Amino acid sequence: MKLVTFDNGQVGRLDRDDVVELDVPSMRDYFERGGEVSETGRRFALADVRLRAPIVPKKFFHTAGNFTDHHDELTAVDWSHPVHKGIVFFQNVDAIIGPDEAVVYPEGLTEELDYELELAIVIGRSGKFFGPEEAEDYIAGYTVFNDITARDIQRREMQSGVFSFSKAIDTFCPIGPWIVTKDEVPNPQALAMELRVNGERRQAGNTRQMVISIPHLVAYHSAQGYSAGDIVTTGTISGVAAVQPNPFDFYLRPGDRIEAEIEGIGTLRNPVIAWKDAHDSEPYSIDLYGPTN
Amino acid sequence: MKLVTFDNGQVGRLDRDDVVELDVPSMRDYFERGGEVSETGRRFALADVRLRAPIVPKKFFHTAGNFTDHHDELTAVDWSHPVHKGIVFFQNVDAIIGPDEAVVYPEGLTEELDYELELAIVIGRSGKFFGPEEAEDYIAGYTVFNDITARDIQRREMQSGVFSFSKAIDTFCPIGPWIVTKDEVPNPQALAMELRVNGERRQAGNTRQMVISIPHLVAYHSAQGYSAGDIVTTGTISGVAAVQPNPFDFYLRPGDRIEAEIEGIGTLRNPVIAWKDAHDSEPYSIDLYGPTN
Repeated sequence: MKLVTFDNGQVGRLDRDDVVELDVPSMRDYFERGGEVSETGRRFALADVRLRAPIVPKKFFHTAGNFTDHHDELTAVDWSHPVHKGIVFFQNVDAIIGPDEAVVYPEGLTEELDYELELAIVIGRSGKFFGPEEAEDYIAGYTVFNDITARDIQRREMQSGVFSFSKAIDTFCPIGPWIVTKDEVPNPQALAMELRVNGERRQAGNTRQMVISIPHLVAYHSAQGYSAGDIVTTGTISGVAAVQPNPFDFYLRPGDRIEAEIEGIGTLRNPVIAWKDAHDSEPYSIDLYGPTN
Repeated sequence: MKLVTFDNGQVGRLDRDDVVELDVPSMRDYFERGGEVSETGRRFALADVRLRAPIVPKKFFHTAGNFTDHHDELTAVDWSHPVHKGIVFFQNVDAIIGPDEAVVYPEGLTEELDYELELAIVIGRSGKFFGPEEAEDYIAGYTVFNDITARDIQRREMQSGVFSFSKAIDTFCPIGPWIVTKDEVPNPQALAMELRVNGERRQAGNTRQMVISIPHLVAYHSAQGYSAGDIVTTGTISGVAAVQPNPFDFYLRPGDRIEAEIEGIGTLRNPVIAWKDAHDSEPYSIDLYGPTN
């Protein structure tokens, strides 16, 4: 089943080319009710609705360092610290955008805007402190995540042993286009992944390259507790702009169109637009590293 | 005004030794409505209610590195990376506990449980991309935050240039005992801070030691967007256990009682209890750094 959030926040499921509206106020509520919700009786053509981010979770666990090839490409260019497996931080849930929504380029804050394709796990019910053998009970489905990152900010953050801001700026968290329930994903560790910019392939890999398996990853973070609808990401594959010999030929620019695709899950498309086109003002700027009292 | 959440999640304001119940379902709703809520007419003796965490925000901005003395004590013991001013990550909103609630010692995950007293700013309304001169309009009040940290986990995380898990384990986020609105805090940059364990002073400082002022800090993170009720913490002062010559004499133990006090805001008290006393089972354990596919 493919679950969508659409138009003014209504929840639905896809039925071929239609959206069948479900009687629940939000996707988080859908999972809090264990998916036991009725239909409203209303049905729309998928082509006639505007898909939104499928869910705004209470918590968005952003994990990293899980793919050997991305680890290798980082190591090759001596990218700051070694990245251990299973590191985690929380993504900004207010930065979430949905399919076809624009990533707004904050020209006043960064000159190095990058992409990172990731498979995102949707947690179906609350729980904590469980082992890998129980993890399947907590997994409801999957969606696509494009981890937009300001590399210049990230490098400075990592000097302090932390990074978050660089991935948490407004509109930096595209997810979607829908949630595919796990019954439609017989083997989530064998899905081809590909990210394209303006139709050109930039990242390619497969979820089988994860070092930490999905059940272990989900169990591993359960000491932090899950609420129904939480998201856990699984790390990106090789091909990010930052590690290219000429990264400025690959960093995102206003006008770019990103397609983030995972086999069996879907394709998440987002344009990049200039600050001025979103805000009709000069790009916002603040001294990020020098303010004093 | 002192705003409280109590008993089954009701919201109220203190009137001397009474709690005046407000007609709003949650503290986040209180701020979303701009504080324009009526009273229910019910009133309780403060001594007869159970105070809860005053708010569970949508986002909890956890900043660090803002106090010169804590920065100096970290530098003196060569604690991993240099800590820049104004670094940020998101705290786990599901780890929040209120006054007198127990921090549960996860003996299966850590042997180095530490405390960190911080002033927490409560954001009153949604907004993004603003400057320091506008920040006052977004600040609603203050509360006390005790940043419970597993130092052994944090050290390992920081090798990868990130830390979050070490501060995000279940019950690691005590806040309270209430929110003091800013009209009662004429100068938030001149508040004495003191943290005691079993009555013994461990941390002492003053909010005037912040390097980044509160308005600049609030503006600085606005590129990530605020929702009404969000929390922004301001960093801790010197005296944490990790930097003592004999840290294991200072790390928290089950049975400890922590008092985190900020002048004019209040005293947040939390006991530390053993895992077994909370869960009636052997301490949860999982291989945090070695799982493989």
